[in-house]
Amino acid sequence: MKNILIIGAGRSTTSLIHYLEAKATIYKWSITVADKDPEFFNGKISGATNAIVLDIFDEEKLNQEIFRSDIVISMLPARFHPIVAIACLKYARSLVTASYESSEIREMNTEVKAKGLLFLNEMGVDPGIDHMSAMRIINRIKEQGNVIKGFESFTGGLIAPESDNNPWHYKFTWNPRNVVLAGQGGPAKFIQEGKIKYIPYNRVFRRTELIDIEKYGRFEGYANRDSMIYIDKYNLQDVPTVYRGTLRRPGYCRAWNVFVQLGATDDTYIMDNTENMTYKDFINSFLYYSKEDPVKTKLYHTMHIDQDSDEREKIEWLGIFDETPVGLKNATPAQILEHILKEKWKLSPEDRDMIVMWHKIDFEDSSTGKSKKLTSSMVVTGENQLNTAMAKCVGLPVGIVVKMILTGQLNLKGVHIPTSKEIYEPLLKELEEFGVIFNETVY
Amino acid sequence: MKNILIIGAGRSTTSLIHYLEAKATIYKWSITVADKDPEFFNGKISGATNAIVLDIFDEEKLNQEIFRSDIVISMLPARFHPIVAIACLKYARSLVTASYESSEIREMNTEVKAKGLLFLNEMGVDPGIDHMSAMRIINRIKEQGNVIKGFESFTGGLIAPESDNNPWHYKFTWNPRNVVLAGQGGPAKFIQEGKIKYIPYNRVFRRTELIDIEKYGRFEGYANRDSMIYIDKYNLQDVPTVYRGTLRRPGYCRAWNVFVQLGATDDTYIMDNTENMTYKDFINSFLYYSKEDPVKTKLYHTMHIDQDSDEREKIEWLGIFDETPVGLKNATPAQILEHILKEKWKLSPEDRDMIVMWHKIDFEDSSTGKSKKLTSSMVVTGENQLNTAMAKCVGLPVGIVVKMILTGQLNLKGVHIPTSKEIYEPLLKELEEFGVIFNETVY
Repeated sequence: MKNILIIGAGRSTTSLIHYLEAKATIYKWSITVADKDPEFFNGKISGATNAIVLDIFDEEKLNQEIFRSDIVISMLPARFHPIVAIACLKYARSLVTASYESSEIREMNTEVKAKGLLFLNEMGVDPGIDHMSAMRIINRIKEQGNVIKGFESFTGGLIAPESDNNPWHYKFTWNPRNVVLAGQGGPAKFIQEGKIKYIPYNRVFRRTELIDIEKYGRFEGYANRDSMIYIDKYNLQDVPTVYRGTLRRPGYCRAWNVFVQLGATDDTYIMDNTENMTYKDFINSFLYYSKEDPVKTKLYHTMHIDQDSDEREKIEWLGIFDETPVGLKNATPAQILEHILKEKWKLSPEDRDMIVMWHKIDFEDSSTGKSKKLTSSMVVTGENQLNTAMAKCVGLPVGIVVKMILTGQLNLKGVHIPTSKEIYEPLLKELEEFGVIFNETVY
Repeated sequence: MKNILIIGAGRSTTSLIHYLEAKATIYKWSITVADKDPEFFNGKISGATNAIVLDIFDEEKLNQEIFRSDIVISMLPARFHPIVAIACLKYARSLVTASYESSEIREMNTEVKAKGLLFLNEMGVDPGIDHMSAMRIINRIKEQGNVIKGFESFTGGLIAPESDNNPWHYKFTWNPRNVVLAGQGGPAKFIQEGKIKYIPYNRVFRRTELIDIEKYGRFEGYANRDSMIYIDKYNLQDVPTVYRGTLRRPGYCRAWNVFVQLGATDDTYIMDNTENMTYKDFINSFLYYSKEDPVKTKLYHTMHIDQDSDEREKIEWLGIFDETPVGLKNATPAQILEHILKEKWKLSPEDRDMIVMWHKIDFEDSSTGKSKKLTSSMVVTGENQLNTAMAKCVGLPVGIVVKMILTGQLNLKGVHIPTSKEIYEPLLKELEEFGVIFNETVY
């Protein structure tokens, strides 16, 4: 009997728990789900699974639970993983997370290897499925003797067409704060035709690319942070173009850029008197003073937004010119904007989310010497507010890889992300059973 | 015999040393100028003045020199003042600087008072003459029973009309790094007609005001950091408009904004491969990839710069489309831009700089009930590269106040900036002898 400990029972764990529960009877696993807040267990856990209340800052309790387990999954926010990782090292347990590999965890590599353990990070969707699906194509193209000339990859957490009923074609299906702060903290960086390019925050949402995906229509992508680090991760040395981005529906970025330009996404300072501010006051605080001009006119005038423009509909739909009180104390602009958007971009109970992923590889065909393009796209839609596409795409890779580890199918040791064939081949294959399918076109 | 110790003999000390030397024989002072680098003494010091090599990190030597002095002037970069201040506290010596009062020094207030000392900061031009000249007007208007409705104040370190021979109408007369980074580190903040306004960095150089000064023509002003802190400093509570800014010649800000938008003023990350970069490569790294378009076209296209625009002349004059090697290793964008500008905006030996200051006070005349405006402007031009307007306007207030302290004319104790009448009245009066004269107009 193997014991699986899942720490953290938030939004993205539903599919993970269901997957492991379904396999538990076959493989004789015992599953324990731990969270500080027992409310998170609601609707996620069946009878056979243990649910325990655990605060990871209660070191004794954390140690006890990790000692009792055979493998640990941390679904906590990324900043808490090191605490779990230290306890895992102490009791020699392997660890799986869906978050970016932090330098703290990377530095444990020698010790993890020495103890014969595996700390596997980035096992979600982005990061996770993006790595695996990209590496599968990259390695295949290379093995066929072709030369890769360009790699582009875009992912977006969006709303399914049947629930797409607002002018932004967007709702919060993931951490709202991250959406508001997207693009901040250093320029977007990538390489194009051998030239390194830097896009400052104030231009990120105006340097977009259009992408068409069959049956799902058109999307736009903006550059996502530092693409250059993927050159080593994906073994793309000497490939002249490497670009990663985030997907939205067309028009989103241009309208979002209004908030960026305004300074309304700034999270670095606290505004004065926010408790007495209305939405309109909030917007007005970034605009010139005028005795006559209404706030709306001032915004459109400052941002050069034409009367017939698409941005106007999006912006006005958010109600930012209303006299609604903000109702937050000592808030940053970003916090106020997030507060306004949370109301508007909220998922309804019947709403379905959608995850879209798209890769494009340019390569030189070794047999003909001709330039070719391969595109690969994946679209997964959620079932409802609990069984979301996000929960599926984050939870299933974690679940599948835990099964692979516990059944001896994966014998990797050390600190890793899923870029090696021994992980991605069986895992992507099994994901297809759950509707996570990539469609390729070569032309 | 009183001993005056001046630590730091950089650019802005010429007039200070000359002023104190001229008074030394009358008042029987001995002057010591200390710097780490003896080259700075060249041309600044006459026979009677002692020049010593001093590294302030040599604590023993620093202590010795401070112990020997009666009063200490620190003309070092602002970050070094606390080191000098600690030694001044130890040996109970008063301290004068031309830099912004730091929180570290402010926290010494109780101890400074207890020891009967004066630590007087912000005794330069901006900060310094700006405070004194503003407070003189503010207090006079209030004493006449009038009600202040608005306060605006602008200062600029520029180039004198006779040396103004480039399309930017600007040269570096002060720390180039600060010019490149101007406006960064938090939004500009001010209050206008009772509404607090925030301007993000990416809009600061597009929210300018035009200011005309008789005989000197037109200037443009952009918002300078947090104007709100001057409400308490200047006793302007309940005044609905308080705005401070920086002056340039018209057109500068719009052209400078091109670099801001491009990301070329970013100092937060190091660019790749800067040692092999040309000026053109540097600009190109922020622009879209194109097989056909020249870098120049890409820049103008991206920034919506028309063919007949004034920005083009400014930008092309800088030579940023040349194949000149940058020649810097591991440099940030801001460092590269500073490097390019330093060549172009360099003062020639015969160049004269110019300091411009302008205040505007709106008030309600108590006798008539009418709205009135008072403007007060000051323009000082330098004599040559050594006796600059900057050196004069920074050094003379320091020199004069040191004379006031040593002759018992000023008996203030504690940590202060020059906003009280006992400092500004005699000091501004004496400054007039040196051509630092404010011209007022009421209308």
